[in-house]
Amino acid sequence: MIQIIGLESMPLIKKGDDIGALILDAAQRQGTKLEEGDIVVVTQKIVSKSEGRVLELSRIVPSPFAVRIAKRTGRDPRHVEVILRESKRIVKMQAQHLIVETRHGFVCANGGVDKSNVEGEDCVSILPSDPDESANRIRTTIRRLSGIDVAVIISDTFGRPWRMGHVNVAIGVSGMKPIIDYRGQRDMFNYVLTVTVMAVADEIASAAELVMNKSDGVPVAIVKGYPYRKGEGKGIELVRPAEIDLFR
Amino acid sequence: MIQIIGLESMPLIKKGDDIGALILDAAQRQGTKLEEGDIVVVTQKIVSKSEGRVLELSRIVPSPFAVRIAKRTGRDPRHVEVILRESKRIVKMQAQHLIVETRHGFVCANGGVDKSNVEGEDCVSILPSDPDESANRIRTTIRRLSGIDVAVIISDTFGRPWRMGHVNVAIGVSGMKPIIDYRGQRDMFNYVLTVTVMAVADEIASAAELVMNKSDGVPVAIVKGYPYRKGEGKGIELVRPAEIDLFR
Repeated sequence: MIQIIGLESMPLIKKGDDIGALILDAAQRQGTKLEEGDIVVVTQKIVSKSEGRVLELSRIVPSPFAVRIAKRTGRDPRHVEVILRESKRIVKMQAQHLIVETRHGFVCANGGVDKSNVEGEDCVSILPSDPDESANRIRTTIRRLSGIDVAVIISDTFGRPWRMGHVNVAIGVSGMKPIIDYRGQRDMFNYVLTVTVMAVADEIASAAELVMNKSDGVPVAIVKGYPYRKGEGKGIELVRPAEIDLFR
Repeated sequence: MIQIIGLESMPLIKKGDDIGALILDAAQRQGTKLEEGDIVVVTQKIVSKSEGRVLELSRIVPSPFAVRIAKRTGRDPRHVEVILRESKRIVKMQAQHLIVETRHGFVCANGGVDKSNVEGEDCVSILPSDPDESANRIRTTIRRLSGIDVAVIISDTFGRPWRMGHVNVAIGVSGMKPIIDYRGQRDMFNYVLTVTVMAVADEIASAAELVMNKSDGVPVAIVKGYPYRKGEGKGIELVRPAEIDLFR
């Protein structure tokens, strides 16, 4: 059995806060015991805030290109400028949509630049500079303070081609393999599985979202009972390399 | 807290089997109590088998087009023929990949035609003809036999553009809204959320996959504790209409 428990009493996060320590406090307050082998899923938003990855739009001077895109899409040119600064390639620019490759290599709308759940009229959050390193830092803190080795996933909310709605995916990982490769294993009827590679870290991020809700202030979930494969995975392993991506 | 419990003792499913009744039996055997508000996630594979959606390739005569595609991609032409019969449009045909719109409207590789976990050297499974109706049938049976109203999701394993690996998604739904629309709601800082529409049925399908494992014979999971919105959703609501899909 897998259990997914939301941490209900995380405080509002500000720059410099130690997320790992705050997770241990919040877990203790609600009587959730962290155990070896748990997975701690943390939304990107609070990680970005703790790392000071919040920008005031009033300080951003948009480039002429950002101004032109903003005009066509009815957006704030300074917001578009931040998206462009976070991007290394534009994958698709159509109607109001701006799908980019972020500096890390993630493919997503608006480069992970987001207005929601950020204090300040004029502020947007951007992705952590290295989400794996963010995950690793939280994991190390938890291990140092509690002696318990967990895996950590930093999650974000992405749209998808073909399908409606957003789902949470993993952008940073520490302590687990994000992908399980069943190729070469046999199925129930001894047929060799040829194509099944499961993105389990994304599935765990999606599962965790079910206790988070978008507007509810539950930015951390503890997943218990999933026998993940330990190891030093990276979030970028979950990104399809451009040369084998038919839709980029 | 959400709990996800795999049903470990489902029998091998054959044509005509009553999945709803077998789920109740298996749950009882392992002491899992079904309750009002649970979500029962069932893999497409056993639903297809129970509905006789298994084809012997030896009976399939491939069309010239199927033969040509098969030659270029190194596949069995009869298998390709089945894929084409299940498709209403080819979205992308490149290297060994064949991404299609199924007759239902789902966009996926190989039209949901699959060789794994099917008895018989020469057999493939195809998707249920109406996965919502399949979900509804299972739900109705469970309600009739136990008096308990659950939601039911039929799940399948899909690849995604941009990201590596497969995840489970919902192709059929009964008794719940598959999408939650947060647009117009306010976030923690009173900012109106403008874009967040969550595909919760897909997230639930992904969560359930974590207790299923590809080759393990756990084709059903019970999800407890998720406060889904009741209603008559449909699996096709999770498919982005072609006219607003930038990647089709």
